[in-house]
Amino acid sequence: MSAKRILLSESEMPQAWYNLQADLPGQIPPPRHPATRQPVGPADLEPIFAKALIEQEVSRERWIEIPDEIRRVLAIWRPSPLVRAFNLEKALGTCARIYFKDESHSPAGSHKPNTAVAQAYYNKMEGIYQLTTETGAGQWGAALAFSCAQFGIKCKVFMVKVSYHQKPYRRSMMHVWGGEVTPSPSEETEAGRTILAEDPDCPGSLGIAISEAVEAAIARDDTKYTLGSVLNHVMLHQTITGLEAEQQMKIAGDSPDVIIGCVGGGSNYAGLAFPFLRHKIAGAEMRFIAAEPQSCPTMSRGQYRYDFGDTAGLTPLMKMHTLGHTFIPAGIHAGGLRYHGMAPSLSYAAKLGLIEAAAFHQIECFEAAKLFAETEGTIPAPETSHAIRAAIVEALRCKETGKEECILFNFSGHGICDLSSYDRFFAGALEDFAYPQDRIERALAQLPVIE
Amino acid sequence: MSAKRILLSESEMPQAWYNLQADLPGQIPPPRHPATRQPVGPADLEPIFAKALIEQEVSRERWIEIPDEIRRVLAIWRPSPLVRAFNLEKALGTCARIYFKDESHSPAGSHKPNTAVAQAYYNKMEGIYQLTTETGAGQWGAALAFSCAQFGIKCKVFMVKVSYHQKPYRRSMMHVWGGEVTPSPSEETEAGRTILAEDPDCPGSLGIAISEAVEAAIARDDTKYTLGSVLNHVMLHQTITGLEAEQQMKIAGDSPDVIIGCVGGGSNYAGLAFPFLRHKIAGAEMRFIAAEPQSCPTMSRGQYRYDFGDTAGLTPLMKMHTLGHTFIPAGIHAGGLRYHGMAPSLSYAAKLGLIEAAAFHQIECFEAAKLFAETEGTIPAPETSHAIRAAIVEALRCKETGKEECILFNFSGHGICDLSSYDRFFAGALEDFAYPQDRIERALAQLPVIE
Repeated sequence: MSAKRILLSESEMPQAWYNLQADLPGQIPPPRHPATRQPVGPADLEPIFAKALIEQEVSRERWIEIPDEIRRVLAIWRPSPLVRAFNLEKALGTCARIYFKDESHSPAGSHKPNTAVAQAYYNKMEGIYQLTTETGAGQWGAALAFSCAQFGIKCKVFMVKVSYHQKPYRRSMMHVWGGEVTPSPSEETEAGRTILAEDPDCPGSLGIAISEAVEAAIARDDTKYTLGSVLNHVMLHQTITGLEAEQQMKIAGDSPDVIIGCVGGGSNYAGLAFPFLRHKIAGAEMRFIAAEPQSCPTMSRGQYRYDFGDTAGLTPLMKMHTLGHTFIPAGIHAGGLRYHGMAPSLSYAAKLGLIEAAAFHQIECFEAAKLFAETEGTIPAPETSHAIRAAIVEALRCKETGKEECILFNFSGHGICDLSSYDRFFAGALEDFAYPQDRIERALAQLPVIE
Repeated sequence: MSAKRILLSESEMPQAWYNLQADLPGQIPPPRHPATRQPVGPADLEPIFAKALIEQEVSRERWIEIPDEIRRVLAIWRPSPLVRAFNLEKALGTCARIYFKDESHSPAGSHKPNTAVAQAYYNKMEGIYQLTTETGAGQWGAALAFSCAQFGIKCKVFMVKVSYHQKPYRRSMMHVWGGEVTPSPSEETEAGRTILAEDPDCPGSLGIAISEAVEAAIARDDTKYTLGSVLNHVMLHQTITGLEAEQQMKIAGDSPDVIIGCVGGGSNYAGLAFPFLRHKIAGAEMRFIAAEPQSCPTMSRGQYRYDFGDTAGLTPLMKMHTLGHTFIPAGIHAGGLRYHGMAPSLSYAAKLGLIEAAAFHQIECFEAAKLFAETEGTIPAPETSHAIRAAIVEALRCKETGKEECILFNFSGHGICDLSSYDRFFAGALEDFAYPQDRIERALAQLPVIE
């Protein structure tokens, strides 16, 4: 019997990140200025982001070295295990082999610190005193607070209000690491005040919180903004996941036929998928499935076009799959997947036909999560449960067809801070949401037409 | 620079548990019948425990083989990492080398599944339908619920009422794994009803919950009781921790001078300490420090004498360090350390002078936990923070004396389910409790005199 967990030693941790932009046919359309609509250059981004990160954002180098200082912090939990889900396979009675990359053992409990550590490091190197950011379910804010503590930087987090109240534990995690947390929309920014004037009970959204965090960063010279997903440099930092998984699959003597991850802004999935995607670009046969919520079906029902990253329209316009920046998804428990857009790199790859999308309802995802917890032990985050659901669908397809495929998914985080959501699931208090097409089309109709 | 985490592969997982009883000079005094006061034999325990576990309880074999079925479940998270606390060392400015054995990555988040898996397995093998148990902070109940799910047994947990309300997340974890949870004292048992008749607002204690769980097990033929600490077979199952740590310290090219763990009933500490203790018995120079709360100072202020394991006086009498079975400790946040007694094996070793005790207040422990989280990343359980405090005290002693000692402690669990306790700590709402000696003496005066 082969090992359940395939481990790598610290010395086997990848020394460089993989940059998909080097291998993608064509080029990801550039971001555009929110006012002029002209392509945005590196200089335009400097008030917001650290220079090193802007360089990575536009780099077309295939491999970008990971500084030792970053690797030393990542070594707190990396390399992460690749796990064979023997028990889940058995429960499903499938002939498929199911593996998951377990990103739940970071101090913050998810994949998010992979990029938070890098972003905190580069900002520290550039003499920045404080970082601002937004957070949905709290995974990203917690990751950044942890990372800022490692490098001695202040951390200010705008947390989507519905999650601030639904996920008090992640808020507390940020406090333990010294982070400052503000429920968004807040009175602290112009963006927040505008929204609150229209709707004082607004539950918030990632888009709104981004507007507030960007505004707070622009307001001070010693402060920069960080984003936990969507941007190219975030995807880049996450590729350490897929690069490790590639080594580990070789050790297991196996090779994935289907690669799955949940998508909100796209970073955990890009992290696992991109290093493997280069083999598909080179001709290998593999399927890539991005699993998203039915209540925020960015890739399956949105359009591929230019849109703002935030709600207020402060950020550059990015070409991406989007439901429209005014679309505010229902308050489902997978708060990290409630985002109207999708990483431009991932969207571009999907446009090229390299990646397909699948959308799931939250109740079927909680059912998948319960089965996973009973068989594989760890309790999944509601976000992660979308990847599990997709993996189960694929494994059952294999059972039906008799195809002995290898399925790999990203176990992006644990659900220990989401247990109140499980309580509601068990109490039968969850609802499934699917938007009528006209509501989506109304939000899309408000987008600027570019090209 | 040496590696931060020392990992072992699944094939290096220990194949046998280590039984300290084989090497202890003299013999641990036997348990005695609660009514007759006569030594209790294996047959007396059969209504309560699985036969295989009773055999292990009294065995004097040095090595007891771990069945493959148990190792396969443990492989979900074992072998666990041994971690060098470089960042904590640096923050303290100590010349000491600090290592911790990280037991926080089990699905339940603590060391408890090490024995829960074994107990669920042996009961399953003996055809048992349901297991009952008690739980304090919820660590043990969650561990048993997870383990019962792995082997398909029903699990019924009596949870100390104060923790049931303080730790809703651990209660929810048990539900995810299919466990049934009842706040204790409850109306379901005679023991619970008696307590509630006297004090309807009783916050409960481990002792009371044990009474209820034992009563519920005796009431049905297909049901047995399990205990998460105190007993010899529990300590035995936990030794996998120390045996792994021994291999890992060798790989690190180091050897511990001081071995530390927090103690409630004693199991996480025994697990780490006992395999090393055999070297001390054989003449090696090492110090063993059991870290306990000032508000429940079983080893530092209790007496070594026969006492009941529970509050109602249903269990056999055990010779152990105790504050008296009627002693109900204050509702501190380290719920898992609120136990009036201590494992007889650990108590006996302390009586022989092999182990020393140190008691800490909860506020200084939360301060230690915050420093640990900021430096080493992971947020500790309040119980674990006692071990961290003790390790910091030792490291600062080394700093003062210039002695370059090696300190090893057990990181018994994470505090993600205890974040509301951190909230109270940050709000300045925690109190330190230390009992006047006469209150402890009053509880001890009620004990039966045996010998």
